[in-house]
Amino acid sequence: MLPGAPVGCAAYLVTAMTITHDLAGFLQTHVVASGATLEEIEKDFSDSQVPEQPTFVSDYASFLKDTLVAQSVHTASPGFIGHMTSAMPYFMLPLARILIALNQNTVKVETSKAFTPLERQVLAILHRLIYGFDDPFYSRFIHDSRSALGVFCSGGTVANITALWLARNQLCAPDGEFGGIANEGMFKALKHLNCEGLAILVSKRAHYSLAKTADVLGLGRDNLVLVDTDDNNRVDMRSLRNACSRVENENKRVLALVGIAGTTETGTVDPLEEMADLAQEIGCHFHVDAAWGGPTLFSDTNRWRMRGIERADSVTFDAHKQLYVPMGVGMVLFKDPQAVSAIEHHAAYILRPGSKDLGTHTLEGSRPGKAMLVHAGLNIIGRRGYELLIDQGIERAQQFADMVKAHPDFELITAPELNILTYRYNPAWLQHKMSTARPAMVEEINRHLDDIVVAVQKAQRAAGKTFVSRTSLAPARYKGQKINVFRVVLANPLTTHAILEEVLKEQQEHVSRLRALIVPLRELAARA
Amino acid sequence: MLPGAPVGCAAYLVTAMTITHDLAGFLQTHVVASGATLEEIEKDFSDSQVPEQPTFVSDYASFLKDTLVAQSVHTASPGFIGHMTSAMPYFMLPLARILIALNQNTVKVETSKAFTPLERQVLAILHRLIYGFDDPFYSRFIHDSRSALGVFCSGGTVANITALWLARNQLCAPDGEFGGIANEGMFKALKHLNCEGLAILVSKRAHYSLAKTADVLGLGRDNLVLVDTDDNNRVDMRSLRNACSRVENENKRVLALVGIAGTTETGTVDPLEEMADLAQEIGCHFHVDAAWGGPTLFSDTNRWRMRGIERADSVTFDAHKQLYVPMGVGMVLFKDPQAVSAIEHHAAYILRPGSKDLGTHTLEGSRPGKAMLVHAGLNIIGRRGYELLIDQGIERAQQFADMVKAHPDFELITAPELNILTYRYNPAWLQHKMSTARPAMVEEINRHLDDIVVAVQKAQRAAGKTFVSRTSLAPARYKGQKINVFRVVLANPLTTHAILEEVLKEQQEHVSRLRALIVPLRELAARA
Repeated sequence: MLPGAPVGCAAYLVTAMTITHDLAGFLQTHVVASGATLEEIEKDFSDSQVPEQPTFVSDYASFLKDTLVAQSVHTASPGFIGHMTSAMPYFMLPLARILIALNQNTVKVETSKAFTPLERQVLAILHRLIYGFDDPFYSRFIHDSRSALGVFCSGGTVANITALWLARNQLCAPDGEFGGIANEGMFKALKHLNCEGLAILVSKRAHYSLAKTADVLGLGRDNLVLVDTDDNNRVDMRSLRNACSRVENENKRVLALVGIAGTTETGTVDPLEEMADLAQEIGCHFHVDAAWGGPTLFSDTNRWRMRGIERADSVTFDAHKQLYVPMGVGMVLFKDPQAVSAIEHHAAYILRPGSKDLGTHTLEGSRPGKAMLVHAGLNIIGRRGYELLIDQGIERAQQFADMVKAHPDFELITAPELNILTYRYNPAWLQHKMSTARPAMVEEINRHLDDIVVAVQKAQRAAGKTFVSRTSLAPARYKGQKINVFRVVLANPLTTHAILEEVLKEQQEHVSRLRALIVPLRELAARA
Repeated sequence: MLPGAPVGCAAYLVTAMTITHDLAGFLQTHVVASGATLEEIEKDFSDSQVPEQPTFVSDYASFLKDTLVAQSVHTASPGFIGHMTSAMPYFMLPLARILIALNQNTVKVETSKAFTPLERQVLAILHRLIYGFDDPFYSRFIHDSRSALGVFCSGGTVANITALWLARNQLCAPDGEFGGIANEGMFKALKHLNCEGLAILVSKRAHYSLAKTADVLGLGRDNLVLVDTDDNNRVDMRSLRNACSRVENENKRVLALVGIAGTTETGTVDPLEEMADLAQEIGCHFHVDAAWGGPTLFSDTNRWRMRGIERADSVTFDAHKQLYVPMGVGMVLFKDPQAVSAIEHHAAYILRPGSKDLGTHTLEGSRPGKAMLVHAGLNIIGRRGYELLIDQGIERAQQFADMVKAHPDFELITAPELNILTYRYNPAWLQHKMSTARPAMVEEINRHLDDIVVAVQKAQRAAGKTFVSRTSLAPARYKGQKINVFRVVLANPLTTHAILEEVLKEQQEHVSRLRALIVPLRELAARA
């Protein structure tokens, strides 16, 4: 699209060190700069009075450097592999500065002008990436104010809420005497549908935002049905089908099936094609939460993992994750560009019917023009660049999984499908013992291992050199017992093999200091 | 709080020219740089293919400068007085750069550390500004993870949704067998309450986000009851009381009364004390939408206008409006710090019960640490600085109202209470005729004037030198007939008396070019 030279995308990524160089050089080697506890830091932020007098900017800047910047988290560090953060491409910073200086408000054309077609173009590009319709389709809809290929929002949670809000309003659309749920509310909608509830069905690995969605939209969290997964953390289709029947037997309607393309905890992808078949059979909305995995579509090598996503009625896609844009940018794409009429709103002073104002169909009101940063990423990095980033992340995760498997002290819990994996401390000799121990003994050992995982994760976080997160999973191998695991996300292209080795080495060292936990574990194992 | 010198806040505000100097110098004199239509601009953003190859940053930067920056809106221009935008204090730009480089995610402490206590402090300061509890109260709650004095979000719309989500969940809390609306949904909640709907009552001047709120939360827009206002655009208490009775007669419950502290279109403040009395009498939630007017509390001279706000259960407060922070920062404050338990959510990998993670009670998930910019404004500008800005805006609006009244061509429609006013083209001689004309003739003249207001506003916007917005109101003086008006917001401290004179002069010139509209109007008036 823009005259571009075929430059490898790695060239566009500078070290995280450069990005924070002028901010806090000491963050270069540490994920957090010092061992101050949250309680200590709170003391610097404990005055509740409005500051009466102005402060010199220079004084404030020093205060900020010492108390805030120095005590922030180096999310761009290549050793910070516990959450969905990464180093940013270097061009994002100067571009974000322009964005802030322009301070556009994309709710309406009058305060954003060119940002309006730019945002619509970005949505069209990602829509095409997912759905792949033809040129005439995009020519017709890209700038058509009576429709929308998607909406921008502040992140995946609002994207999920927006998608299911739309699905809810479509299912309970105006019909004869009934004015639609948007006008008459949930109570009358269910009376009209002659049922007692609307359910969203999704695997147990669903992001917690879906529970929030069920709450906010008036469905109730009990009507978010969390379905069992298979051994690979993908929704179990038989359980899903049974759950659908149960919902109908309870005189409820299935509002939507939600497929996950990259679960938050394990990075797995649901069987989207089979889910699409089932949704079609039932006649319900099919939403795919691709907040994490969506950009896998950029990769010729790995795109197949998303198969079936093109059959979704709506797709959540986060830009501040694997599009490497700064925090606070999400999107939801709609297969049917006219679906947004279900959530359209107007006002007298803006958003008049027929206007091109983007605010007519967003959940949020005033919004910054962050689509510009997504546009920049798409152009400067290009499909080939994102492909490289995605492929490398998946390869790196596979390498780390191999390292964990080969390591005498660790047990791989979930192998990576994309670039997320989980593992825990569990030395080979103990794994061997557990394989023949009585179930009660296995359970007890697991409880001990849980404590060690928590202690190691906290010690590692406090030491501030590297960081992994933790969660709890219930793998089939332990008959569904919930166990604590380390969770690793490999999306930072600066994370090297050496750093991954360092992570394991550091964990090993932390374990060796946990005598109070290790000794009883050894005694227990001796009895196994 | 910080060692601050008593420097006048005006010193902190540099001209909008400086802010955009290195971006697009040509925007200095024009609100928009060129007369390109949206349709023309769309051509630059019409490729829906993912760019295959990377682009050089320098090439992309040129593209951006020519097609986006040059075609954006100069929202910081002192002649851009049509929407709630302003020039930013100069220190916001370098601080925002730090914020973006740090790229914290305030959903959890692990990705934000010091940003967590900082955000809680900002909420405490604004809570104290509104509610004014004592030191022990704030010492107890400021950093108490089991409670929250408020939540940050992307803007006023999400703030309003959050406040009424909380109100809804409190009204329909778990009770005996009933598990609460958060778990069981709206249908069972209303069965439990033995009623057929929940209503939100607010004046006709309500922001459109409240209709969205009623839709999203499952209440239905029909249950947003828009109550008549008095001649000053404040909610009419008698009508409000009658509306409450009607709601109850329809076997519905009043979920909340919403008072507006600074309406979007006219800047008026509802009688908050009387509304608080009524809410107390009914036993319903009292929410105040102070997205615009909240910062009036900083002013010793004008604080009285907000009287009664301290009795609200929740208050919406936007930072990207009159706290002069870049786009995308809102808040809702809760009088009762423990109220947030009604909207609490947890997950296994973060937000564990008892954690200090801010994401346990936000509608959004991942969020940037924008509280930092509010913190900066509060410290660097200080209460005295914000006071100056607020007072000047109110004075300037009064001056502009006087200019409109004194002008032979214009009619003031709503006098400013804060810093927003509306007026229209209606020359003195015509006003005089209308005062004695038959009602049908007045109506017809108004329709002609409507066309002129629209044409002038569009011509002024297209010329790109100055900008006012427009809306429609139904003033008592025209017996409730809806008429089009110019709407002016005076929040930019750089807007001078000379610029305001220029706005009227330019409008006069645009009118003089509208022969096709003016000639029939004169003919019509001659028959009056």
